[in-house]
Amino acid sequence: MSKKSPYSITSSSASPSIWKLAAFGIGALLTSASSLVAQHEVDDDAADMAPIRISGNENAFGYSQMAMMAIMEDLPNVNRYAFTEGQVLREALAAREGVPTDYIIATGGSGPILQMAALAIAEPGKNMITVAPGYMQLTRTFEAAGGEVKTIPVNDKLGYDLEAIKAAIDENTVLVYLCNPNNPTGTKIDPTALKAFITELPESIVAFVDEAYLELADGGLEENSMIDLLKAGENIIIARTFSKVYGMAGIRVGYGIMDPEMVKKLRLYHMGGPNRLGIAAAVASLADTAFFDDSVMKYRAVRKMVTDKLDELEIEYADAQGSFVFIKTGIPIKFFQSLMEDKNLLVGRPFPPYLDWCRVSIGTEEEMAIFLEEFENVMIAQGKLAAN
Amino acid sequence: MSKKSPYSITSSSASPSIWKLAAFGIGALLTSASSLVAQHEVDDDAADMAPIRISGNENAFGYSQMAMMAIMEDLPNVNRYAFTEGQVLREALAAREGVPTDYIIATGGSGPILQMAALAIAEPGKNMITVAPGYMQLTRTFEAAGGEVKTIPVNDKLGYDLEAIKAAIDENTVLVYLCNPNNPTGTKIDPTALKAFITELPESIVAFVDEAYLELADGGLEENSMIDLLKAGENIIIARTFSKVYGMAGIRVGYGIMDPEMVKKLRLYHMGGPNRLGIAAAVASLADTAFFDDSVMKYRAVRKMVTDKLDELEIEYADAQGSFVFIKTGIPIKFFQSLMEDKNLLVGRPFPPYLDWCRVSIGTEEEMAIFLEEFENVMIAQGKLAAN
Repeated sequence: MSKKSPYSITSSSASPSIWKLAAFGIGALLTSASSLVAQHEVDDDAADMAPIRISGNENAFGYSQMAMMAIMEDLPNVNRYAFTEGQVLREALAAREGVPTDYIIATGGSGPILQMAALAIAEPGKNMITVAPGYMQLTRTFEAAGGEVKTIPVNDKLGYDLEAIKAAIDENTVLVYLCNPNNPTGTKIDPTALKAFITELPESIVAFVDEAYLELADGGLEENSMIDLLKAGENIIIARTFSKVYGMAGIRVGYGIMDPEMVKKLRLYHMGGPNRLGIAAAVASLADTAFFDDSVMKYRAVRKMVTDKLDELEIEYADAQGSFVFIKTGIPIKFFQSLMEDKNLLVGRPFPPYLDWCRVSIGTEEEMAIFLEEFENVMIAQGKLAAN
Repeated sequence: MSKKSPYSITSSSASPSIWKLAAFGIGALLTSASSLVAQHEVDDDAADMAPIRISGNENAFGYSQMAMMAIMEDLPNVNRYAFTEGQVLREALAAREGVPTDYIIATGGSGPILQMAALAIAEPGKNMITVAPGYMQLTRTFEAAGGEVKTIPVNDKLGYDLEAIKAAIDENTVLVYLCNPNNPTGTKIDPTALKAFITELPESIVAFVDEAYLELADGGLEENSMIDLLKAGENIIIARTFSKVYGMAGIRVGYGIMDPEMVKKLRLYHMGGPNRLGIAAAVASLADTAFFDDSVMKYRAVRKMVTDKLDELEIEYADAQGSFVFIKTGIPIKFFQSLMEDKNLLVGRPFPPYLDWCRVSIGTEEEMAIFLEEFENVMIAQGKLAAN
């Protein structure tokens, strides 16, 4: 295999630990996988190292080893559709969320939930409200379906301005999109304020709460999720994903939670559930609470390491409640990206209108130490920081 | 793991052969996978055997072992999005099809291509044409998007009646859906007649040619595909899938081939590319021509075994050019399904208006021998065949 192959194995890969697997009697499988990883690492020339990828909000800590095993166990069945298995996943998700199974739609990542909602709800003459900078997947589909989008700037803390959103609502508003924490700013919405906001929305308006990163916020899902409002009958759709805390971005599993009547509307645009290996991995991940806890702990620890350093350097950033930090560099983002790429670091893309800020995803502790060092060097070289 | 688990391994699974893998230096991995399969087979109680699943047009011959290896090699990267890898797949598909890369959209199975086309093209007041019985995934989405569907019955050979379709076209027709071979009937369209039909269509009408099963038709892709018309500038979308001949139904990879302007229209509704393990498997499968040839050969041989027996029994069926045979049982399909399920055989669902016919997917030779025996028994018991 060529070094240039996209299938070469990177250093931030999940590395199996054998003791956990012995209980399943298939340790040999992962011992082999482990050797394979090691072999590729030895083959790699340090001078030709893969760049540090802190650009796409991926989980650098890997994913559950139980999920990897579940994938391996299911490999002989790739030729079969996942009819039964998809139902098993929906049941597991429903149990986790404390809702009936017909409240769940599982998809390839949570993106399709956003887009299905847009297609189900958008109409010419109707509008939705979102924020800028914000995550655009729902917004773009809403426009493609003929709806109008009203965009409200984030407030001076780069957070949601719920009063301004409320003021923008008119008789043609059908949806409010709330990504919490917001991507790319990372700020979260105060749960009490958000509950009041949603409760006061006219019944006809859908509150779409995208909780992709919410496990990582202070207080986690428990203190911040709007699921209780859904259970209480509010007109809400909640989206979640296995791409972030669970570290399964590449295998595409996400889901939406909503009233069964809303499920029916969205299902008209459903383009298919997750693939069966993703399903197997998701079911296993739900059971692997040790991985989940470890992932949350690592994210929070490394995020704090980054923000502590930014504090020390007196660099401005938005309150970081997700798997990334939005940093004011004062350098045009395209240029900043190229400066960091010269240091073998891939950082986040432009998020208008904050074009001299940069979203940096949380990598491993080692990766972020390298980032912070190179970041400081670049900021000094560009005259944004005084040299020590 | 419980026997009832959907993750238990069935007898028609892909079983690795080691000689092929040695060249890749990771034979140990698949030796372990092989032991795993064997272990599960031993664990299975014959009395508790999984039913024979010839209901869903899955590939009972498994999938490429090179694809399985490619999945294993990519397991450590599941935490990463497949940005680069998706592009590698599109390039490989473009090379295979002899078109520029911007003619390709890759998706989770080919279903999304059908639905994206419906969403991009449907409008209130506009209509599309399809056949009954036919595959409904595009049709349903077209209706959901506000378009009207005109349904033309298949002809007396259960094939496309191109003259009747032509006669149904009016000034509001925007799309004709041609599944070739047709699902569920299995009949294919004469390529000369189809070329003439598409060439004569008004320029404004999209011919959507779903070639999901076309590799298995007499003459294969070479003699039957409409890709040359696309290259010649006709207004065509072609859909293909890795779910059938390639045996990767569970891992969701398919694609559409169309003019870049059409790509732009469909991409407005694109809900995400295939997952990265599916991408790895698809790229490997494209290179594994031995598996492809073997799969086609087995499908044709077992299909002939089935139709030879039906000829012997003087049972009517439609010309079978796909991975299934559409058989006139003369028994209401729901009842027939239950009779076969009693024999541990899962057969195809109802396809109105042919409600006393049954679609039977091609399984392994052993599976179809069991099917034919039980089918004959049931037909005799129901008075549809004389006892020997």
